[in-house]
Amino acid sequence: MRIADRMSRLGTETAFAVSGEASVFAAEGNDVFPFHLGDLDLATPSTVVDGAMKALRDGKTGYAPTAGIPQLREVLAADVSASHGVDYTLDNVVVQPGGKPTIGKFFMTLLNPGEEVLYPNPGYPIYESQIAFNGGIPVPYGYVEGDDDFEIDFESLERALSDKTRLLVLNDLQNPTGAESTVAEHERLADIVRRHDLHVLVDEAYFAMRYSGTSTSFVSQPGMAERSVILYTFSKKFAMTGWRLGASIGPKEIVDLIAKINVNDESCANHFVQYGGVAGLVGDQTEVHGIVDELRRRRDAAVAGLNAIEGVSCFTPNATFYVYPNVTEVMSRTGLNDYEVFRKAALHATGVSFTTRLHFGGALPDETDRHIRFAYSGIGVDRIEEGISLFKEFCES
Amino acid sequence: MRIADRMSRLGTETAFAVSGEASVFAAEGNDVFPFHLGDLDLATPSTVVDGAMKALRDGKTGYAPTAGIPQLREVLAADVSASHGVDYTLDNVVVQPGGKPTIGKFFMTLLNPGEEVLYPNPGYPIYESQIAFNGGIPVPYGYVEGDDDFEIDFESLERALSDKTRLLVLNDLQNPTGAESTVAEHERLADIVRRHDLHVLVDEAYFAMRYSGTSTSFVSQPGMAERSVILYTFSKKFAMTGWRLGASIGPKEIVDLIAKINVNDESCANHFVQYGGVAGLVGDQTEVHGIVDELRRRRDAAVAGLNAIEGVSCFTPNATFYVYPNVTEVMSRTGLNDYEVFRKAALHATGVSFTTRLHFGGALPDETDRHIRFAYSGIGVDRIEEGISLFKEFCES
Repeated sequence: MRIADRMSRLGTETAFAVSGEASVFAAEGNDVFPFHLGDLDLATPSTVVDGAMKALRDGKTGYAPTAGIPQLREVLAADVSASHGVDYTLDNVVVQPGGKPTIGKFFMTLLNPGEEVLYPNPGYPIYESQIAFNGGIPVPYGYVEGDDDFEIDFESLERALSDKTRLLVLNDLQNPTGAESTVAEHERLADIVRRHDLHVLVDEAYFAMRYSGTSTSFVSQPGMAERSVILYTFSKKFAMTGWRLGASIGPKEIVDLIAKINVNDESCANHFVQYGGVAGLVGDQTEVHGIVDELRRRRDAAVAGLNAIEGVSCFTPNATFYVYPNVTEVMSRTGLNDYEVFRKAALHATGVSFTTRLHFGGALPDETDRHIRFAYSGIGVDRIEEGISLFKEFCES
Repeated sequence: MRIADRMSRLGTETAFAVSGEASVFAAEGNDVFPFHLGDLDLATPSTVVDGAMKALRDGKTGYAPTAGIPQLREVLAADVSASHGVDYTLDNVVVQPGGKPTIGKFFMTLLNPGEEVLYPNPGYPIYESQIAFNGGIPVPYGYVEGDDDFEIDFESLERALSDKTRLLVLNDLQNPTGAESTVAEHERLADIVRRHDLHVLVDEAYFAMRYSGTSTSFVSQPGMAERSVILYTFSKKFAMTGWRLGASIGPKEIVDLIAKINVNDESCANHFVQYGGVAGLVGDQTEVHGIVDELRRRRDAAVAGLNAIEGVSCFTPNATFYVYPNVTEVMSRTGLNDYEVFRKAALHATGVSFTTRLHFGGALPDETDRHIRFAYSGIGVDRIEEGISLFKEFCES
């Protein structure tokens, strides 16, 4: 069969293979600690469930408007305006089945073949895949370890800029590092964006998934709302990964074009689920805060456990549900210097399943430190402690 | 703002503009008869609702597998195998948020820029749009009026074939004409497909939406299942347009690639909605048959009313929820020879809102007869009779 050439440029999430391996290992009767999962094992708040069920009973089963129901676009615009210090209206919001569709549609709308896009590496692998699939040239920039958090490697970012650079992807708060960009980083990025006349995909999937302080958005920088499309998702904050509800938020001109893509692609997001989203945003936030409280306890358990391992060091991220410990010393000491060898040895010795640097783009040329990612969204505190204690024995033996 | 070049090739459903006009006219206090809507005003069967709600209560709110839950893929494969005389397994099924996503993903997977695709015109406008968006060259083939149904215009189809022809789109049962291809037509098409080494998108959105007899699929032809991807949707049969649930069914090689696109695009279809789909397929079919019974009554009312108008002739389609009357004589007699002039005059004189040939691709070069489309999916029998009686006065005055 003759397959179209573009399909050879399409990547995937290689983390799914880890998930598959863990399932096989568990099916063989082994106890598996699922630190590889970026999914939540927590219940969706009842406000959302009740709102969606009411809409379903009320017959919201026909097509929704392709850009989303006006009520959801309005409350989302108000919510994001308040947290971002920007004046969005419903004209700036287009609803989609999840946050992820924003990635491909952003590139479809703005990227011509041969143009370059800066994207974070380590980072979510779909950026690189969708840039290449849409004919662009993915150019990575890295992160470096600062005093208490990862920081954008501006040296690698500025070196990567060329006269073909057209777009920038910023993931803030960041998967897999848990990094939160400071206002100073936002200012420096905004300066680059202005000087090079770029447009920006601002992936804020974890914006509300934070444990202390307040998230600050890149789009709060002067002129950046006009140049940015925010990837918004209900998946994390409302534990709604399987519901598929999200939005693209940005300049009306781009939002209208994304809505036109929606007409051609999925028609609309599920109608009654959109009412669930409205109810989640305007309703009582007790259960939403409960999700964050539970994840904070998990983060604390994971960070404490990992830092107690000799040769492992791990920041305490303020956000996301990932930690990205430095395991350079452990890998060297154990002689398991290959990421896949190390990962599989740990899985088979302890049942602890995690992803590594390889699943987030693979090491950059000048990268020497080794990192792995532990997700704590799908595993409770007791199991976190049990699993990491086994992992400690493995690392220190 | 610099928009990507490909966006200039993206089309839309111009019927939405008709919907907008009708809404404005209604908001001005006028009584509108919505014959323009391709949406259903009927309730989703309780089997589906209960199945989805149970899954939601059971916590099916996390990610589903990107190709769909195995249960749904299995029952869908069994269901379609039985009605199509083909041996599909779950490996031949990839679930998506609606039937429509199959269109774009089929072209992404199989179409290289510059290759030609034959598509039906009159037809669903998204085919032409997605062919062009993906860099292909859309080449139309037409339909002609037979004795009691529309038939594929094989003369125009064979004339349209070239050495660049790579793919064929078949919509059977057809929107807007309501046409059902005969087995003889399937045989003739299969012969062309073999001779020209084509692959086929078989849009069967209305396969189960029929009033007598049994639908026969093009993929039942020898060798055609291996060359075809079926667009399957829950939208029509189960009155689930706003739920967004459908599938692509075809060779494993293509299905796997579409699943890989899903990883990059929407991740998965809504998890608990998929259980609703399973329940709809395996559960009691009384309400499903009730939907068809109601639509049959509407079809009969619409066809009888339209054929009672002097200068209008209308087939009685066995399927879909559209009729596509020939209004050549009326348009000529009233002097309203322009489609848009005729449509707007009818709307403003009677409140009867419908779409025309223009919304399904625009007339082909050798096309002289004039047609309009009445959808009866969103309007009950009494209102159909009332509206068409006003339309009759308009046409005969």
